[in-house]
Amino acid sequence: MRQFLVVGHDAPTTPEFSLEDLPGAGRLDLLARAVVAALLHSHGVRSDSRVHLVLDDAYTFVADGATVRHLRPDERSTAARVRNALDARDEAIGAMPAEPSPGVALYRGGLVPALERAAADADRVVVLDETGDPASEAKPTESPLFVLSDHHDFATSDRAAVDKHDPCLVSLGPVALHADQAITVAHNRLDTDSFARY
Amino acid sequence: MRQFLVVGHDAPTTPEFSLEDLPGAGRLDLLARAVVAALLHSHGVRSDSRVHLVLDDAYTFVADGATVRHLRPDERSTAARVRNALDARDEAIGAMPAEPSPGVALYRGGLVPALERAAADADRVVVLDETGDPASEAKPTESPLFVLSDHHDFATSDRAAVDKHDPCLVSLGPVALHADQAITVAHNRLDTDSFARY
Repeated sequence: MRQFLVVGHDAPTTPEFSLEDLPGAGRLDLLARAVVAALLHSHGVRSDSRVHLVLDDAYTFVADGATVRHLRPDERSTAARVRNALDARDEAIGAMPAEPSPGVALYRGGLVPALERAAADADRVVVLDETGDPASEAKPTESPLFVLSDHHDFATSDRAAVDKHDPCLVSLGPVALHADQAITVAHNRLDTDSFARY
Repeated sequence: MRQFLVVGHDAPTTPEFSLEDLPGAGRLDLLARAVVAALLHSHGVRSDSRVHLVLDDAYTFVADGATVRHLRPDERSTAARVRNALDARDEAIGAMPAEPSPGVALYRGGLVPALERAAADADRVVVLDETGDPASEAKPTESPLFVLSDHHDFATSDRAAVDKHDPCLVSLGPVALHADQAITVAHNRLDTDSFARY
């Protein structure tokens, strides 16, 4: 399984935001695109992928390609899924998530518990970083967990949380990419066995 | 320069559509994402890129990374740029486009003239096709023009129009991608000199 965890530093933690202004809702446009990049390809769902959005270090939205239904590729409808999940946040109690629809969960807690949960199903934690090893040389594993930031750099506390999972650093190229673009390129590398299988 | 031409088969040709329902506006969500993938990277504009959206074979929206201003990565604001361009469509006369803002043009005419214009600045026309040569083996050129379709396959007439430009077929991998995902992967291949430079 491939997992992607995106740290949304300014992301909303209540459903009181407008779908007409996703950039103003803590860059939920960016986070919605990350969900779509992680879980959808043309006319299909990536059933071996899961995506985690850490929302202002308070909640974590999780969508699982194996079981999610009716996910569409546009930002607005995807952001509405996040809003619906936040609307059910009172049902998230302790480590038990709210589950507003199949394949969608909302957990209480931010980056530290989200990393714990995701890493439990991963064989490697990968941080995409321009100083890392070239993606063409890094040997893919079966169950990578990619950790990405939103439009902000990782905070020092983010780095500390990730470092506990012994991450490797991988560079996707010399051009800094949006989170969704980085997810797309990471998928393509894995789809092609590091650019060997077309 | 890198160019991307996306055929929007159902795209609107008048500004009378709602920014609250971009999927219902001839999949303008998809076309907006293609513009963003072509022209933006993290915190910057790809000044060597140009994107062409063919709108229902009647008009063509063009945005040029060298001169466009205030382009944002979200679908809604990008779709609003297309709407503004369509609002100025009466100023497009013959081969002269409307130019509603710097770096943005709206031409009358569909795929055939759009290909002529774009190919004039290209040294190779590339069609992304799963039966094509692996992207890792195809030698990049300085000024490729990538031709993509929206959520529909190319129509027979589309293929005929493209074939006049002696295209080469390139495969990006075994998984069919959304247009914006394919643009992102094509950029990454060129950014890395076919996965050699990181």
